[in-house]
Amino acid sequence: MVISRIEDLARTRGVDCEVILVGSAARGTWLSGDHDLDIFIGVSEGSSLLPALEIARCVSPKFEERYAEHAYVHAIFEGFELDIVPCYLVETASKILSAVDRTPFHNRYVSRKIKGLEDDVLLLKQFMKGIGVYGSELKVGGFSGYLAELLVIRYGSFLGVMEKAAIWRPGEMIDLEDHSSLDHEDPLVMVDPVDPGRNVAAALTLDKMFQFVAASRLFFEVPDLEFFFPSPIQPLSDQEILEHIAKRKSTLILLEFAAPDLVEDVVFPQLRKAEQSIRALFDRNCFLVLRSDADWHRGVSPELCDMGGSENSELCGVIRMLFELEVASLPRIERRVGPPVWAAEHAKKFVSSHLEPLSGPYVEDGQLVVEVARKFVEASELLRSQMTSLSLGRHLGPELRRGYKIYLGQEILEIRDLEFRVFMARYFSARQKVC
Amino acid sequence: MVISRIEDLARTRGVDCEVILVGSAARGTWLSGDHDLDIFIGVSEGSSLLPALEIARCVSPKFEERYAEHAYVHAIFEGFELDIVPCYLVETASKILSAVDRTPFHNRYVSRKIKGLEDDVLLLKQFMKGIGVYGSELKVGGFSGYLAELLVIRYGSFLGVMEKAAIWRPGEMIDLEDHSSLDHEDPLVMVDPVDPGRNVAAALTLDKMFQFVAASRLFFEVPDLEFFFPSPIQPLSDQEILEHIAKRKSTLILLEFAAPDLVEDVVFPQLRKAEQSIRALFDRNCFLVLRSDADWHRGVSPELCDMGGSENSELCGVIRMLFELEVASLPRIERRVGPPVWAAEHAKKFVSSHLEPLSGPYVEDGQLVVEVARKFVEASELLRSQMTSLSLGRHLGPELRRGYKIYLGQEILEIRDLEFRVFMARYFSARQKVC
Repeated sequence: MVISRIEDLARTRGVDCEVILVGSAARGTWLSGDHDLDIFIGVSEGSSLLPALEIARCVSPKFEERYAEHAYVHAIFEGFELDIVPCYLVETASKILSAVDRTPFHNRYVSRKIKGLEDDVLLLKQFMKGIGVYGSELKVGGFSGYLAELLVIRYGSFLGVMEKAAIWRPGEMIDLEDHSSLDHEDPLVMVDPVDPGRNVAAALTLDKMFQFVAASRLFFEVPDLEFFFPSPIQPLSDQEILEHIAKRKSTLILLEFAAPDLVEDVVFPQLRKAEQSIRALFDRNCFLVLRSDADWHRGVSPELCDMGGSENSELCGVIRMLFELEVASLPRIERRVGPPVWAAEHAKKFVSSHLEPLSGPYVEDGQLVVEVARKFVEASELLRSQMTSLSLGRHLGPELRRGYKIYLGQEILEIRDLEFRVFMARYFSARQKVC
Repeated sequence: MVISRIEDLARTRGVDCEVILVGSAARGTWLSGDHDLDIFIGVSEGSSLLPALEIARCVSPKFEERYAEHAYVHAIFEGFELDIVPCYLVETASKILSAVDRTPFHNRYVSRKIKGLEDDVLLLKQFMKGIGVYGSELKVGGFSGYLAELLVIRYGSFLGVMEKAAIWRPGEMIDLEDHSSLDHEDPLVMVDPVDPGRNVAAALTLDKMFQFVAASRLFFEVPDLEFFFPSPIQPLSDQEILEHIAKRKSTLILLEFAAPDLVEDVVFPQLRKAEQSIRALFDRNCFLVLRSDADWHRGVSPELCDMGGSENSELCGVIRMLFELEVASLPRIERRVGPPVWAAEHAKKFVSSHLEPLSGPYVEDGQLVVEVARKFVEASELLRSQMTSLSLGRHLGPELRRGYKIYLGQEILEIRDLEFRVFMARYFSARQKVC
């Protein structure tokens, strides 16, 4: 097995270290279908992490180096995806040098408490996965495996967690060891039992938390297998997309551009930021946004993309952002409300900076108002012209400036790939299991 | 003259009374072009007003009885319009039984103070008339003649008034006799010099006050005859209306119905109320109103209308309300934001009352959201269907329910009368003299 292979490598090189299998695989709380193993190579404090990293590089020929707080290796070995992480073996979790040094402590804590509750953890994780709130990566903003384990430890069973979650409120706090040492503003606070200053649920968003809450309540009314194993979403046909558009009578604007060659946790925050910047642009210009969504459509297998180390970003697929607006165009006329008449200096400036209005100036509620010609009447024209001046994230910005495409309304039918058609099905339905 | 004719009538009937010419005609502050005379028939306290009213009815065969706080006669006599008002002669203005009893006191106060300032009053009144803020009737909500006189008395001259007005702020207070006995919330407070509890400027709206302020400031920069005698507004041709519509690219909705057979001061507050009700209807249904206006188009001479005492309300013309909207139609899809998930009972009710949404339910910012089919996609359809359930004023409501017509966009070209074409010219320009 891989553990002994790494131990062998260490012995050959004379590196003094401890190889630890951590995470769900180590605790018997491993969801089938997952193929991830987390392996830590612990060295004593004061020594260098480099020899351990060197060992990690030799485990498999298919690998790439990644970087979180420090370097680690992502490798493919006998059909598994491995994260091989060098770390320091410290005395207590509060003395860690890097976040990864904490993991062995988590491993020990959970292993000690979880005996007999493994199936409940599996049920809870599968439930969370089924309703789309499992995973603490930034793309999801949901529950981590460790958080799920701690919830089961706290409430004793899968159903115990569900029952308590059904009555959660924002700011809920759970402190297993009763040793919290910091205040947190997060929606859910799970004080780390091995580190009193840390919130295990820091990555959980308000919406994922309450999606879980709402699903828990519904589960008690309709305990259905669908929660755990939802039917896969079918990609929409051209005809179905057209029907949705006709039924909604709104305006769809889709922005498409090449994804940068970076990991998800770097790209997704920028994606949300770009989405918010564009929403704000529409807002400022009086185009009401009904809803928006963004996704990274790889178009090729994620494995190839991640493992290729390719410089060709097209291999990493495209990013698509969808904006649904109330209207495609606004009237040419636009109200500008100025200062009150009694602010004489400001009033004078306002009038002299609108010398040829279409209507006005006139007094309304004591304030000066003019009606002028709006610059951008079409939402798509507005987006095109302002794109380069928006704040779109450090890596997405340059990518967007290199080139993008805008699809308006039923032009989205030109996009044929199935992943996109599933994305649209999910967008139009937007149905979550809530009560 | 008419005064001696009334005195004769009183003597013949043995009625003990005093006939007083009041208002601007009595004080030499009468704008040319006006044909109104105010004549009061004063009787002593404790006696009846009826004999005085009987006399008023005999002055001219062309008359109608009107009613403010009590009955008076509006008559046409030798080309003048007369208001002949019975009142009580009381000792001091604070002892009056009815608002009209105050008028002789105003007359006496102004007559005593205005000597030598008559021309300044005339200039001020003509200025106010020219910019559209003269008249305390509810249709205008502007400056009364008495208020203009008091302003000149306070500031010594036409230019003195203009200079001070240029720096007015809301809540400005003027107390000529330094005897104010009440607090007022009005934009301008001119304590009545004959009645310490009364604000002479109570009818002045914030907007008319600051239209005057803004015009005063501009007058000092560009002292132009146009302020006093603005060029008459030319009615718009079909071509011109079409050009305005094309330039604005907004949605015009015009509502037309027969005017009730009532005086302006009764109709105009209801007109504003109906306008606000309809604006609120559009607002509630997410149709953004850019601007609106309403007017009473007599279509026949006002004299005929006022004097005819006709039961046929068509003779009194039509009321037209214009609403300019951003868009004519909205998408079918509409967001409904419900309670937060943690309000479990409300959440459950919300979800079960939207069982077949087009999208959702989903969690957004902790709240439940559904997207449902909007009932009214067209603004005109919304107005038509909700008209009868709106609060449209005691007399306008029934009139509207009897019948109305809606013109959409360039359908307003069907309305040929010149008064309407002038109304539209004024609407599109909306230009006031401000700085």
